[in-house]
Amino acid sequence: MVASEFVHVPDLNLVVQEIAGEMRARADRGNVATYIPELARVDPHQFGLAVIDGDGQVACGGDADVPFSIQSVSKVFTLTLALGKFGDRLWRRVGREPSGSAFNSIVQLEHEHGIPRNPFINPGAIAVTDLILSGHQPREALGEILRFMRFLADDPSVTIDEKVAASEQRTGFRNAALANYMKSYDVLDNPVDLTLGVYFHQCAIAMSCRQLAMAGRFLAHLGRNPATGHSVVTAERARRINAIMLTCGHYDGSGEFAYRVGLPGKSGVGGGILAIAPGKASIAVWSPGLDATGNSHLGRIALEMLTKRLGWSIFA
Amino acid sequence: MVASEFVHVPDLNLVVQEIAGEMRARADRGNVATYIPELARVDPHQFGLAVIDGDGQVACGGDADVPFSIQSVSKVFTLTLALGKFGDRLWRRVGREPSGSAFNSIVQLEHEHGIPRNPFINPGAIAVTDLILSGHQPREALGEILRFMRFLADDPSVTIDEKVAASEQRTGFRNAALANYMKSYDVLDNPVDLTLGVYFHQCAIAMSCRQLAMAGRFLAHLGRNPATGHSVVTAERARRINAIMLTCGHYDGSGEFAYRVGLPGKSGVGGGILAIAPGKASIAVWSPGLDATGNSHLGRIALEMLTKRLGWSIFA
Amino acid sequence: MVASEFVHVPDLNLVVQEIAGEMRARADRGNVATYIPELARVDPHQFGLAVIDGDGQVACGGDADVPFSIQSVSKVFTLTLALGKFGDRLWRRVGREPSGSAFNSIVQLEHEHGIPRNPFINPGAIAVTDLILSGHQPREALGEILRFMRFLADDPSVTIDEKVAASEQRTGFRNAALANYMKSYDVLDNPVDLTLGVYFHQCAIAMSCRQLAMAGRFLAHLGRNPATGHSVVTAERARRINAIMLTCGHYDGSGEFAYRVGLPGKSGVGGGILAIAPGKASIAVWSPGLDATGNSHLGRIALEMLTKRLGWSIFA
Amino acid sequence: MVASEFVHVPDLNLVVQEIAGEMRARADRGNVATYIPELARVDPHQFGLAVIDGDGQVACGGDADVPFSIQSVSKVFTLTLALGKFGDRLWRRVGREPSGSAFNSIVQLEHEHGIPRNPFINPGAIAVTDLILSGHQPREALGEILRFMRFLADDPSVTIDEKVAASEQRTGFRNAALANYMKSYDVLDNPVDLTLGVYFHQCAIAMSCRQLAMAGRFLAHLGRNPATGHSVVTAERARRINAIMLTCGHYDGSGEFAYRVGLPGKSGVGGGILAIAPGKASIAVWSPGLDATGNSHLGRIALEMLTKRLGWSIFA
Repeated sequence: MVASEFVHVPDLNLVVQEIAGEMRARADRGNVATYIPELARVDPHQFGLAVIDGDGQVACGGDADVPFSIQSVSKVFTLTLALGKFGDRLWRRVGREPSGSAFNSIVQLEHEHGIPRNPFINPGAIAVTDLILSGHQPREALGEILRFMRFLADDPSVTIDEKVAASEQRTGFRNAALANYMKSYDVLDNPVDLTLGVYFHQCAIAMSCRQLAMAGRFLAHLGRNPATGHSVVTAERARRINAIMLTCGHYDGSGEFAYRVGLPGKSGVGGGILAIAPGKASIAVWSPGLDATGNSHLGRIALEMLTKRLGWSIFA
Repeated sequence: MVASEFVHVPDLNLVVQEIAGEMRARADRGNVATYIPELARVDPHQFGLAVIDGDGQVACGGDADVPFSIQSVSKVFTLTLALGKFGDRLWRRVGREPSGSAFNSIVQLEHEHGIPRNPFINPGAIAVTDLILSGHQPREALGEILRFMRFLADDPSVTIDEKVAASEQRTGFRNAALANYMKSYDVLDNPVDLTLGVYFHQCAIAMSCRQLAMAGRFLAHLGRNPATGHSVVTAERARRINAIMLTCGHYDGSGEFAYRVGLPGKSGVGGGILAIAPGKASIAVWSPGLDATGNSHLGRIALEMLTKRLGWSIFA
Repeated sequence: MVASEFVHVPDLNLVVQEIAGEMRARADRGNVATYIPELARVDPHQFGLAVIDGDGQVACGGDADVPFSIQSVSKVFTLTLALGKFGDRLWRRVGREPSGSAFNSIVQLEHEHGIPRNPFINPGAIAVTDLILSGHQPREALGEILRFMRFLADDPSVTIDEKVAASEQRTGFRNAALANYMKSYDVLDNPVDLTLGVYFHQCAIAMSCRQLAMAGRFLAHLGRNPATGHSVVTAERARRINAIMLTCGHYDGSGEFAYRVGLPGKSGVGGGILAIAPGKASIAVWSPGLDATGNSHLGRIALEMLTKRLGWSIFA
Repeated sequence: MVASEFVHVPDLNLVVQEIAGEMRARADRGNVATYIPELARVDPHQFGLAVIDGDGQVACGGDADVPFSIQSVSKVFTLTLALGKFGDRLWRRVGREPSGSAFNSIVQLEHEHGIPRNPFINPGAIAVTDLILSGHQPREALGEILRFMRFLADDPSVTIDEKVAASEQRTGFRNAALANYMKSYDVLDNPVDLTLGVYFHQCAIAMSCRQLAMAGRFLAHLGRNPATGHSVVTAERARRINAIMLTCGHYDGSGEFAYRVGLPGKSGVGGGILAIAPGKASIAVWSPGLDATGNSHLGRIALEMLTKRLGWSIFA
């Protein structure tokens, strides 16, 4: 597409404001996750959107500065961290195919010798966290993850919501089942409760849309922070993480997200989604109500509007 | 990315020739599909590649003009045809999520009331063909599919390899199981043997890489044939078909294809792959030897080289 | 248990009459099978019971002389026939473990290379029928099965209900799926439509409770017809067929039947059940309404009463 | 069958001695379970057999007085104990159908909302133990189980092998996965580690064949201890427990055991099997080597010989 003087280029800020306004007005908001008691208390009427382009322009709408529990969005960053430390050896522990199953399914593990299908379903992310933990104390591993998030977001105020972590630790029996199952196949190196402790805390990191979009910039720009030019990962690795986000980032709603939004993205049950428009922008959206596949209902709709209005789909 | 005079732009023709040469020299060629007896006879030492860009430039390498059995690549075109006739009602019969399973798995059907996961696994494609058949004689439906392929390829010489069709008809018990299973759930409208007859013939369409790349142009250019400017589908529909190709186009190797190649693509057990570089080119590659997931071994490798050398991945 | 003059031995005829009376009065009758249209027309208010002991005493109650479609009860007799012809080679084609699945599940076949779990679920019985068919015309194979039934029942009037056979042939897509699936694994020798033709006709054999109980006598008496002393199978084979009936005779309701009734038994979706009290009696019961697992609702209840009142459970 | 003076009644003691001798001489011994490290050390050349009839006659052969880890054989006794305390409410937590799966499969749980198929696979037995634990300290619950075993065996020397319990506690990740999975569905009432603690200790009860056969007498004799006449359970409950043993007692080898042995039985990975000949005898056999389904290889063969030579099959 050649942009000539006659082509209308929509104003990013205006589009973001419009969408935030439309989302605020909608009655259909999905259902807040109830399986983590602490998350069930979140007010479903919140909506935030932040878009950061390659020139550092930030467009924010709605509750873009309200921190929320990033939950599974953290899986993108622990995967990045673990690939940096272990390289492609990581792929001995976890596959990179869509699972066709819910985020917490254990059936696939039984059929495939305890090897999770991809790093963006729960067992896969637990296996990645277990790698990061190896040779460290849980406190150190968690510190490393948190420092990485603060570095990427360029914001030392990013913290962990201990209430959410404790809530998940008390009730995370399904994740404990997944971890013990993998442990029975020697897919995990560390004691199950230590690995789960780090995992529950990483999921409980609280960030705003603005912070999350900041943290995702390297994925939109060939592995580099466009503000500083510093490389986080190689261009090839950034591309590949984006590819996994596209095929596996929304559990058994991944196909639908690709079909409607057309961007790599990763969702969390806190209602956040990080989406990447390669070469263009890093995007974070948040609305706590979820759809039937456990992905933010309004978040997905907002991203569909955004890519349509800005022509940002990677598929055309 | 702005292309300045200092950026090296690789010559498309040269890249295609290089890759064809490298592929010809490789000893690892995968295994020719044996489950359709007629396909088992194909010489595995063949390799073809054709790339057609938006200006109509055609770059060909190797056996790019040798016709091969397009098999499941036909699913992209019957989906396009059926969407044109039935619109989004088609999605009542078939989903659009990756299945996480082999191309011919029946387990998913039992767990989901006979509704196939997506139109690019066998049961999904059979359900799509059944829609095209409805209200017609098999001969008419098949004629419509063939005319559509000739129109898209701009080549009236495209035909069906009757030997391959007959071979599959004699041995296609697994597809007959899938079709009867869906019929038991009323997902098919027509008699099973008629639907399968059309399906087996559509899979037996023989095309060269050049013809196939020609036929795929509309997917690379917002739904239009760039040579004539005529619209085949809307830009949105082209994007969405590309999205399904990316998430579901290679069965349980779809994640791997996205990770390595970074383009929407659809493979067939004849060894062909159609890949789309949105806004840039339509690409067809062919090599009969398959990998463990039933996708062309050298075809995938060649496409990985191509996207890397040309910087065509949609993920960066 | 030693029967002394002081032990009350209930009168068989009286018990059968009592149970038939109680069953007739009950309002809960289950639901008539609807997936074979012709069976859906059967009046659910019918109930029959016939018990034949080792001395040839016949006790009948209710509609014990009304013929019904024996459906899957035929699987006991085709298994017996096939074991006679092929011996233990039969077990290369079919297992003898409970499946834990519904009668028409295809999932198990995909996980176990097309080998059905046992001869009493649909795919297993189709594989057994295919063995009987081998080397014969369908008409001959069917004639052999029918002659065997007439011989066992000592009644040349046993026939096939052609309407039921035709009804199932028109609508038996699920069975066609199972048969084609096995064919794709070379588990069937004959053309799928021929094997299914024989299978649908064998299921459509119509017999009364009296006839069915007559046919089952050899299983209660060490493989011999107690009236003539003629051996049908060896004592060991009779025991083994009884064992398979106990573990697999009621699909995913087999455990419940063993728990409540405590006899080997085989049910059919026509509402019939053949039950064997080893050393004591052959029993047939019929009531068309089915429970959630596809087994006769009142049939199972009547057998539970019978074994309790007569002390016939094999488990004490 | 009427035993006349002309019928040869084999001598029980002689048969037991013969079988023990034959078993000792065999080279095929199966493989000792390795997944519990402490069990992997057991000498596979051991074999014991004990049969106790209704008159209190005890026939022993081989290593019938060597204690072994009863493992899953304990499930029969905890089921009996829990039924005594909770009656049929127990069946809200666990089914009674064969699973068609391995002893430690988790797939079935995911498909059936965390409710185990039957009390004789691991998740079912864990759910039963959880019931026994409710309202008690682990030490108390375990004490109750141990007292029950000593009472049934009429032998206060029965103890728990703490080394085996500790070994399983250290390595029982698969059971921890099952328990956590059920806990996520609220099928367990108690903290997972407490329930598992009791479960691992109950499995580590060490008994000889003689002791185990003593403990099983009530199941062979209408719920009563034939020596004292004291009732342990009702006759109906004894029958029903036997029925579950027959359909579910050997995991995915249950059909084979019924087919070959023809008695209700329950095996454990320690190589023990308790088998019941209703009205005749309680039987315990032990040989540490297991077959592919996790059941004692020689134990099953010995029982097949025993029932054949004594005519004890329940199926004829």
